[in-house]
Amino acid sequence: MAPSRHDRHSVIDCALHLLDDIGLPDLSMRRIAAELEVQPSALYWHFPNKQALLAGVADRILSAVPAPDASRDTSQVARAVLDALLAYRDGAEIVMSSYALRLGTPRAQRALAASLTAHPDSDVLADAVFEFILGHATLLQQRMHAQSIGAVEPDAQDPTAHSDAVFCAGIRALTAGVRT
Amino acid sequence: MAPSRHDRHSVIDCALHLLDDIGLPDLSMRRIAAELEVQPSALYWHFPNKQALLAGVADRILSAVPAPDASRDTSQVARAVLDALLAYRDGAEIVMSSYALRLGTPRAQRALAASLTAHPDSDVLADAVFEFILGHATLLQQRMHAQSIGAVEPDAQDPTAHSDAVFCAGIRALTAGVRT
Repeated sequence: MAPSRHDRHSVIDCALHLLDDIGLPDLSMRRIAAELEVQPSALYWHFPNKQALLAGVADRILSAVPAPDASRDTSQVARAVLDALLAYRDGAEIVMSSYALRLGTPRAQRALAASLTAHPDSDVLADAVFEFILGHATLLQQRMHAQSIGAVEPDAQDPTAHSDAVFCAGIRALTAGVRT
Repeated sequence: MAPSRHDRHSVIDCALHLLDDIGLPDLSMRRIAAELEVQPSALYWHFPNKQALLAGVADRILSAVPAPDASRDTSQVARAVLDALLAYRDGAEIVMSSYALRLGTPRAQRALAASLTAHPDSDVLADAVFEFILGHATLLQQRMHAQSIGAVEPDAQDPTAHSDAVFCAGIRALTAGVRT
């Protein structure tokens, strides 16, 4: 493939595809460039650095979150954010680091905030809900990865059962004050 | 120092000390052994693998959390857990990965659960509160680290001001149902 055939979109496609194969720790600019059969310098034409590229990946991961809609229930939006993070290997970690650096589009926070407009401080509470989802998803992906490589024993019971109860309890508690 | 002078406690001391100097990504068994002037194999006498050593480090980080006490307010316990995580470089990440692998002692969850006994499902809610704190602390440490190495511009305002409002809002919401 000629370098000119790659735009931001196709570079992110490639990064997401590689991510599922090799995971975030091995996802380098060099590796993405090799996959696209270009020199690493060609990537820097689209992204000033790796963090900017990962922010593009984070935006793509969160593109599955529905647009802000005040009529939507927060628990529904929270579930959509969680599902988006879990849809890609290391998805939670990538979104976490982009959020920490305030890169990328705050699509998740805006969707959460819209669902929380009944709350006097919906933006702050939306950030809190997002931080809870990020913590939850990171833990779940780390555990599932450790199990997949045999670093820990598989859970005796369905590993997601307790995890799901914790997620529901957290979202219920975080949004309980909004409905009253 | 002779190998015989090192026990689990002093190995963890050394790991924590190194952590503040070099950060989690560079904290290897080899590096810890070099710091203690022993062969890496000497460490495996105390810890079967690196994850077990990091679980010991995680336990040490959380040892600053007060013992379970039902008379303590959850927000007070949550703040103590947050402060413990932030007291060491990459503290949140180390505790997060130990918790994901279910290694180490659940000191934080027990202290949180004790403060939540008025809630019908205090263990599940305590896990949710812990996941929120872990997400919050990880984000804060990643941002502070990125600023310290110049990867992002320093915040125009005090970076911890908004972060603190989010933490308080999250803990208040998560525990609001308990008091009523």
